[in-house]
Amino acid sequence: MSKVNPRTLSGFMELLPQDQMKMERMMRILRETYSLFAFTPLDTPVIEAAEVLLAKGGGETEKQIYRFQKGDSDLALRFDLTVPLAKYVAAHYADLAFPFRRYQIGKVYRGERAQRGRFREFYQADIDVIGDGKLDIVNEAEIPAIIYTAFTRLGLKHFKIRVNNRKILNGFYAMNGMSEKAQDIMRIVDKLDKIGEVKVKQMLIDELDMRPYKAENVLDFMAIQGSNTEILERLENYRGMDETFDLGLEELRAVTSHLAAFGVPEENFAVDLTIARGLDYYTGTVYETELTDYPEIGSVCSGGRYDNLAEYYTDKQLPGVGISIGLTRLFYVLQEQKLLSDEVLTAPCDVLVIPMTEDLGSAVSTATALRNAGLRTQLYTEKRKFKAKMSYADKIGVPFAVLLGEDEIEKGLLSVKNMGTGEQQMLPTEEAAALIRETVKKRNSAAPIRG
Amino acid sequence: MSKVNPRTLSGFMELLPQDQMKMERMMRILRETYSLFAFTPLDTPVIEAAEVLLAKGGGETEKQIYRFQKGDSDLALRFDLTVPLAKYVAAHYADLAFPFRRYQIGKVYRGERAQRGRFREFYQADIDVIGDGKLDIVNEAEIPAIIYTAFTRLGLKHFKIRVNNRKILNGFYAMNGMSEKAQDIMRIVDKLDKIGEVKVKQMLIDELDMRPYKAENVLDFMAIQGSNTEILERLENYRGMDETFDLGLEELRAVTSHLAAFGVPEENFAVDLTIARGLDYYTGTVYETELTDYPEIGSVCSGGRYDNLAEYYTDKQLPGVGISIGLTRLFYVLQEQKLLSDEVLTAPCDVLVIPMTEDLGSAVSTATALRNAGLRTQLYTEKRKFKAKMSYADKIGVPFAVLLGEDEIEKGLLSVKNMGTGEQQMLPTEEAAALIRETVKKRNSAAPIRG
Repeated sequence: MSKVNPRTLSGFMELLPQDQMKMERMMRILRETYSLFAFTPLDTPVIEAAEVLLAKGGGETEKQIYRFQKGDSDLALRFDLTVPLAKYVAAHYADLAFPFRRYQIGKVYRGERAQRGRFREFYQADIDVIGDGKLDIVNEAEIPAIIYTAFTRLGLKHFKIRVNNRKILNGFYAMNGMSEKAQDIMRIVDKLDKIGEVKVKQMLIDELDMRPYKAENVLDFMAIQGSNTEILERLENYRGMDETFDLGLEELRAVTSHLAAFGVPEENFAVDLTIARGLDYYTGTVYETELTDYPEIGSVCSGGRYDNLAEYYTDKQLPGVGISIGLTRLFYVLQEQKLLSDEVLTAPCDVLVIPMTEDLGSAVSTATALRNAGLRTQLYTEKRKFKAKMSYADKIGVPFAVLLGEDEIEKGLLSVKNMGTGEQQMLPTEEAAALIRETVKKRNSAAPIRG
Repeated sequence: MSKVNPRTLSGFMELLPQDQMKMERMMRILRETYSLFAFTPLDTPVIEAAEVLLAKGGGETEKQIYRFQKGDSDLALRFDLTVPLAKYVAAHYADLAFPFRRYQIGKVYRGERAQRGRFREFYQADIDVIGDGKLDIVNEAEIPAIIYTAFTRLGLKHFKIRVNNRKILNGFYAMNGMSEKAQDIMRIVDKLDKIGEVKVKQMLIDELDMRPYKAENVLDFMAIQGSNTEILERLENYRGMDETFDLGLEELRAVTSHLAAFGVPEENFAVDLTIARGLDYYTGTVYETELTDYPEIGSVCSGGRYDNLAEYYTDKQLPGVGISIGLTRLFYVLQEQKLLSDEVLTAPCDVLVIPMTEDLGSAVSTATALRNAGLRTQLYTEKRKFKAKMSYADKIGVPFAVLLGEDEIEKGLLSVKNMGTGEQQMLPTEEAAALIRETVKKRNSAAPIRG
């Protein structure tokens, strides 16, 4: 029979078991963290009616979308988790309690040009808080606490949550009579890190026909740095010239004021006036998160406040604040940088029970007893040589093997072999379970990333 | 602005938050149970090359498949988790340790005609053990233990795992010279429950041109009932006439012999010669699982032993045994039958912290302290009337509210209100956390299904 090549499509991540375990660990930590902050899990279809997904229409997204006919239906695969959320909240408005806090970890699809580290199918891990008509600023202040908790639990230490407020930027441009050029300015200013002040200034002058002193105003503003308190102090100099600016400054003060009470250390948080995010959507606080030792990776968790989640579906005003982690890409870069911890247990089981006699009854009973003690237990009954059995144990990375020969069966004991140290001892089942549990617990509490 | 109707496609399940929590609970229990039995989690793409997914080709599946072009690529959405597993094992053969035990809980797609209770996007929760060349029979004996553990943990009590062996059926048909008609016979015999012996006999005679005494032979064989021991005894009468039959009988004896040691009670297990499953794939033990109080639902967990998982992709002989739970359908029928437990906590949080003063600092610190104590905590800072806040707490079903007024802040205590009983008391943070934790723990250990 001629064979079909069992290939996986390019741009689609498919992990080997031990890497998948690391990914699962990361997902579990995110689920737990999001739950701790009272977000409820949601699950929406991967396929939606194309007119629903593309209600907003246009843009880069439409070119990338997976769209197809099935029967008479014009269908599309979701390209993010925000549009399905908007649809969900509009559709189920009457059944939801607001503020509505949901998390969703799911796959999304974008037919981008395939290249290294770019995925066409990837996980996003999103949280959003949606208000009905209005939403208190404290929700925006809470977001850094969620990012901090998630990243710390993942094992990261050197990261910085950068925060800005779009009202401050918009107000600043308004007071300088640059509102129409705001989008272009932000696009150019975004290059500060890469090309430096001199070139950015020249671009502002050349491309936007900006007067030199105005370009300097912009650069002076973007150059405001220092501790959070210092930045807020310097922003006070601009107060009273534009209402939107003043409101943004109040919001930024509110967001920073609760940081300590939310448990976010100063060193993991920075007000940063150069953060802008996409222009047409966010209206208040915006967030980016940088791994400080790996700035080249870019932001690994971003988001912000918006005023109108579902305007394409409903007249209801639904403001919200949310953040998103591009999980597949994060996993990929962590793997590239060799930052995934080897401490984490990646074996499919905690203990492998290996019968050494023809009689399998004791092995089955032992496996059942170990499972009842809560241990992930595999019974290995394949008829192979002892060496092959041990090599299997090594290959799956199981921390313990239990050997059951005639001697053990007669004495009612288990020979427990620590596969890491080679140490072996004969113990009653309960003591064996306790020994294994202790070692496994330690490794299971290891963080999946070494930060 | 004209609005787009935020509809969800027919045949696609989208749950409200409290139902989603029940679904998540079921998924978590399945993940934990599969892990306990040493299956490793896998995740494969939803989209595959059409030629890969349809390597086997033909049949009902091909009509139902979601297949489309993107650029030059002929793509399709997976319609089960078995074909992707076959592809995975063939592609990663050299990197896997055999027996390879994997579980996968994921969405699959079938464009069936939409009707009540039929889904086009649905979860399957599969486990498979794959051997390299051969696979010990004990793996087949272990499957009922996995089903039993999963269903018991889900809260079901009245279920029966029905087991047969395809070699016994094939051997029986061979010894009666009916091998070519085997598939048709099984299709007709499958109607026994519905139309009874007399009509089945007539169909065998009319449709298959079978001699009446042969039809009776078939019916006599299918009528073999009793305890497992009794059935095995009666099957001994057929021994020695066909090698395949004898081998099947040995396998069935092996599968039943370990049941007690695997912890499966007699009452949840039955040898049942009428169980056949799809004909072309399974070659040994086959499984079905019935909710005994709801036989009309049909089998909720089925599977069996096969000899050649990946023959379309590789020359390697990869026998295996697996089972699958159609999770979306199971959830749907449990919901229809009102079998989903209300004991399970479906609130997004364990406690809602409600500040009663303008000063939010204490509320933020309290929320942080409760989260540090491991409680899923929501901070409610919206400026609403007290009644509206309480109504929100009721609507999300949170078990506890913490009220923080001036009195509480001054005394450094929390007013903890049990939303179920209405009871309210002032406690230090630690005692409040302990009280909440205890109640929540009890509800979190409730089974999601009342069986």
